[in-house]
Amino acid sequence: MSTSHLRPPSLLRLLGAWRARDSAEPAYRQLAQALRMLILDGRLGLDVRLPGERELAAALGLSRTTIAAAFDRLRDEGYLESRQGSGSVTRLPPGRVQPPGPDIDATSGGNLLNWTHAALPAAPGVAAACQAAIEALPAYLDDLGYDALGLPVLRRAIAAQYERRGCPTTPDQIMVTNGAQQGFSLLLKWLAGPGDRVVIDHPTYHNAIQALQRAHVVPVPVGLPAQGWDIDAMDAAFRQTSPRFAYVIADFHNPTGRSMDPATRRALVAAATRSHTPLVIDETMVATGLDFAPPPPVACHDPSGRHVFTMGSASKIYWGGLRTGWIRADAQTIAALGRLRTTMDMASPVLDQLAVAHLVEGDAGLGPRAGILRQRRDHLMGLIEARLPHWRVEAPAGGLSLWAELPRAEASALAALAESLGVRVAAGPRFGVSGAFERFLRLPFTLNEAQLETGVERLVEADARLHARQPRGRDPLALALEADRLI
Amino acid sequence: MSTSHLRPPSLLRLLGAWRARDSAEPAYRQLAQALRMLILDGRLGLDVRLPGERELAAALGLSRTTIAAAFDRLRDEGYLESRQGSGSVTRLPPGRVQPPGPDIDATSGGNLLNWTHAALPAAPGVAAACQAAIEALPAYLDDLGYDALGLPVLRRAIAAQYERRGCPTTPDQIMVTNGAQQGFSLLLKWLAGPGDRVVIDHPTYHNAIQALQRAHVVPVPVGLPAQGWDIDAMDAAFRQTSPRFAYVIADFHNPTGRSMDPATRRALVAAATRSHTPLVIDETMVATGLDFAPPPPVACHDPSGRHVFTMGSASKIYWGGLRTGWIRADAQTIAALGRLRTTMDMASPVLDQLAVAHLVEGDAGLGPRAGILRQRRDHLMGLIEARLPHWRVEAPAGGLSLWAELPRAEASALAALAESLGVRVAAGPRFGVSGAFERFLRLPFTLNEAQLETGVERLVEADARLHARQPRGRDPLALALEADRLI
Repeated sequence: MSTSHLRPPSLLRLLGAWRARDSAEPAYRQLAQALRMLILDGRLGLDVRLPGERELAAALGLSRTTIAAAFDRLRDEGYLESRQGSGSVTRLPPGRVQPPGPDIDATSGGNLLNWTHAALPAAPGVAAACQAAIEALPAYLDDLGYDALGLPVLRRAIAAQYERRGCPTTPDQIMVTNGAQQGFSLLLKWLAGPGDRVVIDHPTYHNAIQALQRAHVVPVPVGLPAQGWDIDAMDAAFRQTSPRFAYVIADFHNPTGRSMDPATRRALVAAATRSHTPLVIDETMVATGLDFAPPPPVACHDPSGRHVFTMGSASKIYWGGLRTGWIRADAQTIAALGRLRTTMDMASPVLDQLAVAHLVEGDAGLGPRAGILRQRRDHLMGLIEARLPHWRVEAPAGGLSLWAELPRAEASALAALAESLGVRVAAGPRFGVSGAFERFLRLPFTLNEAQLETGVERLVEADARLHARQPRGRDPLALALEADRLI
Repeated sequence: MSTSHLRPPSLLRLLGAWRARDSAEPAYRQLAQALRMLILDGRLGLDVRLPGERELAAALGLSRTTIAAAFDRLRDEGYLESRQGSGSVTRLPPGRVQPPGPDIDATSGGNLLNWTHAALPAAPGVAAACQAAIEALPAYLDDLGYDALGLPVLRRAIAAQYERRGCPTTPDQIMVTNGAQQGFSLLLKWLAGPGDRVVIDHPTYHNAIQALQRAHVVPVPVGLPAQGWDIDAMDAAFRQTSPRFAYVIADFHNPTGRSMDPATRRALVAAATRSHTPLVIDETMVATGLDFAPPPPVACHDPSGRHVFTMGSASKIYWGGLRTGWIRADAQTIAALGRLRTTMDMASPVLDQLAVAHLVEGDAGLGPRAGILRQRRDHLMGLIEARLPHWRVEAPAGGLSLWAELPRAEASALAALAESLGVRVAAGPRFGVSGAFERFLRLPFTLNEAQLETGVERLVEADARLHARQPRGRDPLALALEADRLI
């Protein structure tokens, strides 16, 4: 409803390297694909008025006909709505939300492989935990069912788990949330406001970046070096930009899969403490270690207990469908976050909290699924080395995806083309700001081996088409618009 | 963490008529009680720096000793933290969040009656619905469990319920949320930004007001007349203040319990349509009719389907512990809200959605609990007429509380004193802006009859003490501060 205007320079920044010059794909189709991906990714918001055709043609150095053809296509698909006198406004086709899991999609003949989710189906113990929850439920039915901080039984179980990991924790230091993403929303609302700065790893988890941008908070990216973290650069960012907090995924970093060593943890907390920068540590992936278990939590290195806020989740290790996460902080902060939450969604559901309490008490970890994930990771590594040997991949020690490096900055163009060839992948710029990471794709190894093979084959085809190694039949409109390709 | 300063005029506005001049309570205790209530209510935020003692003494026309004594008491209780050179900052004592249900509270000798929640324990069918959910669960465990819009089975059940209520609805017009409060957060984020105006009924649901204030949105209150709604005043507010939307509880209005008649619904939608003001209709209480079932939804009167957004909830009729609500809107808006949600908390839990689908399909309504609630309402009416005959109460046609009118503007002072006497009630100003409704208390009739009797007796005592009809033993500090009472 609150339509905003996007000026051409902003759209150009968002589009990044959308066009592969040597591609057999006509410019209008590449442009439509790139805009569709931006909308589906959420990087281009909804209800945003795009620049006019003439203006955009000038900014992109293309003919107005090309822009018109791209816009026509997006209008037909439901991604743009044009009203007389008010230009073209971004839309989502009804029912078209980021779809869950491998799904069917009409635009690719009904067999689109969704390869964007780094998440697993339910762990084997989930059904039994839900049954245990039902058995424990009667004791709760006489209450009103609202507890902004969560059920004591779950808060105790989570605190005990931190204790086992070497980080003594009392239940009043724990708050239950509706998944880690709500934990992040809450901490963001508590710690920062519009115009404030927040330091982030670069790349980092895409939904965290989006939440910052929605809240009009300015991300201050600190690039990850080839290995580990650059604490000197973090320290400089803390001192130079006075951020309200720093958001760090210490294990296993999403999307790169790395884990922070103990000395780096100590140095990070020391730097944050010196500059009074709170640390928000995202442990959503902490239990996804494939080659080793991670060292004790970052919070262990904060004796004051007031500098480090930790977010956890049952989604990656047990099931996203439980929608249960938590925050660990000092008791005073937890109490305040509970107050803040009542304006957002009041509380978490009782049944799921009981099921997660059962799972956390059992503390089974990934269990046999660790072996399956290792196999899939290695299978995907092998597929890429064999079929896309010009890409670089490294085996991550944990997490659920590979962070594949392409030889050229063309991830957005490749992902846009791949979508039309039946596979949806997340291009690197989703994990960064200002269009960074055009040389990267995130490839989760949570799909089964046959799906990974299909996915890689479709990427191989997209890669070939992008570089016109196997030009397919030409689109008639493409011929008419040939002129644009020669500019 | 983001400390803000409160200037004396703002604090005076918040305090309202905090002091009963003819009370036996010393001024410092009344002031401490009033500040504690403001903090517990959330009307005075956390991490807010209060004016200095000298400044506040001047503004309130009290001695500095009185202010210091009040602040001392709040510091001892954990509601204020004073740091050298940075004044006194509001805090919550660890573990002290708005507690759920009738609870125990240390400050009143362990038997505080919490009479602030207009909510019920679980309905009889909830346990069976959870069991049905467990049986349906296996079909979902192979999915990732994330669906920002909700499970199709629940969206269909909710759409069918609107159909039964005379409002044809397709499942793609429904989105499942984590309770109605999340529905409101989402719509608020979608429709309005900082500095925008939103028209509200006055009084209205307190958590909606708080959510507006947290979002830096300016509420435009339109007072409710003695009966029904004043659509001319709404219309004028729409035209004169260009609000981003209007938030209306048509049945059963919280806190007054009234229901909007069909002609008024038509007039409201017509006025909103003329001025292009979206309507957000909160139906959380729609199924709590005690004397009659409400007319068809406001959304029925919007043939375009684009002017009315409706929020619903399973919390009041089934159980708050299910944390399941929904939004009804046009399919395009629902799709956009689904995208927006991924930055907040991704999705709703699967198990609870399955349980609520079972309950909504059964559509049992309040069932036998309607009779119990009618009895409790009438019992509470009788208690107030007998024990507090100078208060005015009217029997509401629905909802879960009475909106009691006091003879003087002293609800905040009375509630603060009542808290120290063992009953926590919600003073009228929680349901309004700028300190309005000082003559009102909201008294839910969801407690059982013995609890209602205890609550009323404690209010009788508070009322008596406030007017020094039965002065109790004097506090030694009170004598030392006597001078203030004579000002």
